[in-house]
Amino acid sequence: MEKKEMLYEGKAKQVFATDKADEVVVRYKDDATAFNAQKRGSFARKGELNNAISTLIFEYLAKNGIPTHFIEKLGDIEQLVKKVDIIPLEMVVRNYVAGSMAQRLGVEEGLKSPVTIFDLCYKKDELGDPLINDHHAVFLGAASYDELKEMYALTDKINQLLIALFDKMNIILVDFKIELGKTSDGKIVLADEISPDTCRLWDKDTMKKLDKDRFRRDLGEVTEAYEEIYDRLQKAVNS
Amino acid sequence: MEKKEMLYEGKAKQVFATDKADEVVVRYKDDATAFNAQKRGSFARKGELNNAISTLIFEYLAKNGIPTHFIEKLGDIEQLVKKVDIIPLEMVVRNYVAGSMAQRLGVEEGLKSPVTIFDLCYKKDELGDPLINDHHAVFLGAASYDELKEMYALTDKINQLLIALFDKMNIILVDFKIELGKTSDGKIVLADEISPDTCRLWDKDTMKKLDKDRFRRDLGEVTEAYEEIYDRLQKAVNS
Repeated sequence: MEKKEMLYEGKAKQVFATDKADEVVVRYKDDATAFNAQKRGSFARKGELNNAISTLIFEYLAKNGIPTHFIEKLGDIEQLVKKVDIIPLEMVVRNYVAGSMAQRLGVEEGLKSPVTIFDLCYKKDELGDPLINDHHAVFLGAASYDELKEMYALTDKINQLLIALFDKMNIILVDFKIELGKTSDGKIVLADEISPDTCRLWDKDTMKKLDKDRFRRDLGEVTEAYEEIYDRLQKAVNS
Repeated sequence: MEKKEMLYEGKAKQVFATDKADEVVVRYKDDATAFNAQKRGSFARKGELNNAISTLIFEYLAKNGIPTHFIEKLGDIEQLVKKVDIIPLEMVVRNYVAGSMAQRLGVEEGLKSPVTIFDLCYKKDELGDPLINDHHAVFLGAASYDELKEMYALTDKINQLLIALFDKMNIILVDFKIELGKTSDGKIVLADEISPDTCRLWDKDTMKKLDKDRFRRDLGEVTEAYEEIYDRLQKAVNS
């Protein structure tokens, strides 16, 4: 496999073409952004840790029947993945209240929700990735009602598998965000990444935040938190 | 029927107890507010016109099988209605893009939507009546998934009936907001009002706005627009 020109640079990743039309290389950066990139920074080993964590999670999900874009880890900060058309929607799953949901509804962070909450957001930086609903997504041409149904079902399955995985790690999966894409044959698959950048992860005993909120909220020990997740994850997937 | 103490005063209406426990009197005020009451004003005959318009619309919908809280018009600015527990959700229906949807999605006002768009908002002034989704509504205890299904079906029927009614009046029903309530026997019924305060209504030929946007956006001829709607509505329901 030969890595070719950069196709795209996002806030936390770069994507490169390869000599195969339907495969690309994803490179994880150490850069971190929050609040729609109003806050910017970077921290040591972030790219390496997110690549390693995301790899283990994609492998775990694939083993459990979830279609993903992941092919293989290439090195410390790179992954080989299937090229997909990213669906311009973010699927946010909330098992506990935190972040924007707490603000939107005026409720306290940390409440367990009796129902799984799925938030659909429109991926559009200029608009601040607003919360939308299914009708808006169809209006925008982002997905059909049938595709949304499939996306919710897939997201629900991923949530159940992740809850079980993090439970083994003595961690509460508060919420997470995924992106889905379509492969060249039209199949909807999990894409992007799953890491402490895209999940809220709280230690069950201490309730310590082990995710990007440490960066967002200037709580310190950011790299250490990501290392802790990687550590526990390695044990969980090997147990 | 004897009118008793005021139970509630809202931005555009007052509600009074009667000598019957399950009936209340609604009095329409001339006051107008917009943008979550950041803009305030009042205009001549508003209460009278909204009472008259809402009465004709509630009668039309009831005749077509829609359960409503409406009992009868009592005078120029008052209606007798069933006492209901208002469900703390606003149901917004959009046939064309306008207002907050245009801003949220970054699309132009006036586009016809290929699908009917239902927006669920949480009635909470302090939070600015935010857009939410079904899961949030269930989390908040505002309604169950089954009740929401019933509410969407009822709202869809109301939309079809109103499109047909306004079509006869040579008017495009761009969007509207309704509130639903539960009667003492647990039945979900249309409550509150339907008027140029709660609908966007554009003349089909001139695209002139004949609704509260004339007040919101300082377009002038506010009373005249409401009078025009009342005029055409009387002819439509009597034809």
